[in-house]
Amino acid sequence: MPIVKASMLLNIGRAVFEAVGSPRDEAEIVASSLVEADLAGVHSHGVMRIPYYVEHVREGLIKPGARIKILKETPTTALLDGDRGFGQIVARKASEVAISKAEDNFISIVGAVNMGHIGRLGEYTLRIAENGMIGLGFCTTYRPSVAPYGGRGRKLSTAPISIAAPSRIFPFLLDYATSIVAEGKLRLKYLSHECTPEDWIIDSQGRLSRDPADFYERGGALLPFGGYKGYALAMAVEILSGILVGAGFPCSGCYNGMNSMLLIAIDPSAFIGRVEFIDGISRFIEAMKSTPPAEGFIEVLVPGEPEYRSREEKLRRGISVEDEVWSRIRETALELGLDFDKILSE
Amino acid sequence: MPIVKASMLLNIGRAVFEAVGSPRDEAEIVASSLVEADLAGVHSHGVMRIPYYVEHVREGLIKPGARIKILKETPTTALLDGDRGFGQIVARKASEVAISKAEDNFISIVGAVNMGHIGRLGEYTLRIAENGMIGLGFCTTYRPSVAPYGGRGRKLSTAPISIAAPSRIFPFLLDYATSIVAEGKLRLKYLSHECTPEDWIIDSQGRLSRDPADFYERGGALLPFGGYKGYALAMAVEILSGILVGAGFPCSGCYNGMNSMLLIAIDPSAFIGRVEFIDGISRFIEAMKSTPPAEGFIEVLVPGEPEYRSREEKLRRGISVEDEVWSRIRETALELGLDFDKILSE
Repeated sequence: MPIVKASMLLNIGRAVFEAVGSPRDEAEIVASSLVEADLAGVHSHGVMRIPYYVEHVREGLIKPGARIKILKETPTTALLDGDRGFGQIVARKASEVAISKAEDNFISIVGAVNMGHIGRLGEYTLRIAENGMIGLGFCTTYRPSVAPYGGRGRKLSTAPISIAAPSRIFPFLLDYATSIVAEGKLRLKYLSHECTPEDWIIDSQGRLSRDPADFYERGGALLPFGGYKGYALAMAVEILSGILVGAGFPCSGCYNGMNSMLLIAIDPSAFIGRVEFIDGISRFIEAMKSTPPAEGFIEVLVPGEPEYRSREEKLRRGISVEDEVWSRIRETALELGLDFDKILSE
Repeated sequence: MPIVKASMLLNIGRAVFEAVGSPRDEAEIVASSLVEADLAGVHSHGVMRIPYYVEHVREGLIKPGARIKILKETPTTALLDGDRGFGQIVARKASEVAISKAEDNFISIVGAVNMGHIGRLGEYTLRIAENGMIGLGFCTTYRPSVAPYGGRGRKLSTAPISIAAPSRIFPFLLDYATSIVAEGKLRLKYLSHECTPEDWIIDSQGRLSRDPADFYERGGALLPFGGYKGYALAMAVEILSGILVGAGFPCSGCYNGMNSMLLIAIDPSAFIGRVEFIDGISRFIEAMKSTPPAEGFIEVLVPGEPEYRSREEKLRRGISVEDEVWSRIRETALELGLDFDKILSE
């Protein structure tokens, strides 16, 4: 398993996306988003996506060089049409618009539709937090995979949610799928013929199952996290990032391989003031960290901390890339006529 | 166990709160909030609170006839000081301000501090939904009772969250504590000497426990729902409804028996339009309802449906009030010099 420097992965990603038709800026943004996910330890949203994105471009699903349009706009709101572009480009634009409008009006809400996979939702709420604000993010993927609580059959997407806030230590970052586990982790179990924990999936008859094939081959479904409460949160995410922005919901039959999303930015200076807010979050994080561990735990982790630690470590030591992922990226680059070894030596 | 008409409970509540010094309007609002909670089946926030509220007034914790002040205001935001008033009065005012500002600006955010128990958080997000908008609500109680994931010791409040949206069927309503269970339910187990399910609480050493006395007598803690994910959500709720509005966080040592809260109102006409939005939510609810049940379930329930059904049924058939609760309410009324039987016969 090669250990690769982040800067080198960025070079590879940029070259690949330029080769499929992205302008340099766009290629840089998409590649950087994937590498940042790997740095944060969220490999399911990292460079392993490069070959898939290239496939999406070839299939015409994703359009490099897409032109984002503003469909509707007010001083506090905007609705963007992504023109089937890379999700990262559209989502980044949405976060910039949200930040700018919240700077003028203390709160803003920006939706975006008609775009590819946006990557890691937390990237965009973190961007808002880096500007001293609270960022809330919601996303839907239009790929029904999760059963409603008490039901059988796929009706919800993994419906991720993210909330970020700045601190002096590391940013607070809630960033997760509302399914009990990301679909990518279930896929790993499937590919390695392993059983899942007992509360991940149900089969097509709505019985708990530990066999991932019940999901991939026989119409089972993922469960929401936390039972009824997580299911309610998943529905809220679909409402905010799907129905509200005019893109429907995953099982409404309009699945088109696209993502849609919603961001809210809140400027604390409407309430407590920015410095006091950052002070408060920092003390809150310290209060959690100072809690003695429960049985079976070594320490209390604060949401955002694992990602922050991972980034620090991987910036120093490089990113481990699975052999299989590495060879697929290499093949993709070679197919596009790129000199992979030359990129590596740059 | 007496079965009492909602209108009669309202009369009793109003008379009690007037007797402790609330103007008639205020007494009506507080009593109505409690009765609505009972109608929704959320008895922990219902008329059983009447004797506690009276106690709080006697202790000087809650001030009848409080004057709400606006501490800070912009066209999209407001921060209210509740002047130690009944939480219901302040929270209702916050929801009215949020609705009015969102009607002008498509989104608004309103915080409120320094008030008593606000009752059922969902009351205020529902009020926003009744006006055709999405309501998001967050509340903190400054009563540390929940352990961070992986830790032992009480650091978080039950940190409720609520999200409501309108439909043609019944309003979607997410409305819950981010602890695995409301503290009131744990108390019932304690009082009846019953064991809890295995994932509700830990003891003071951070070991899973099924003995509620470990919580009430020996410094244990409630667990967040859904493990790490629910814990992250609880922290986000404390950040939004506590730190942001300048009221700190539950374990920051400023616990003063008060609640603080935050409401966000979103007007769908900035995106899809109000009629289309309500159509979308209605179809989404139908899609969930049409899911065949999983093993062990009779039907799929949508968040908001149990509350809606309960209300319909209890408006027809009356509200069952526990004997113990009924006699405490009666005693409270008599102590205040009220003619309880006369109120009942009105």
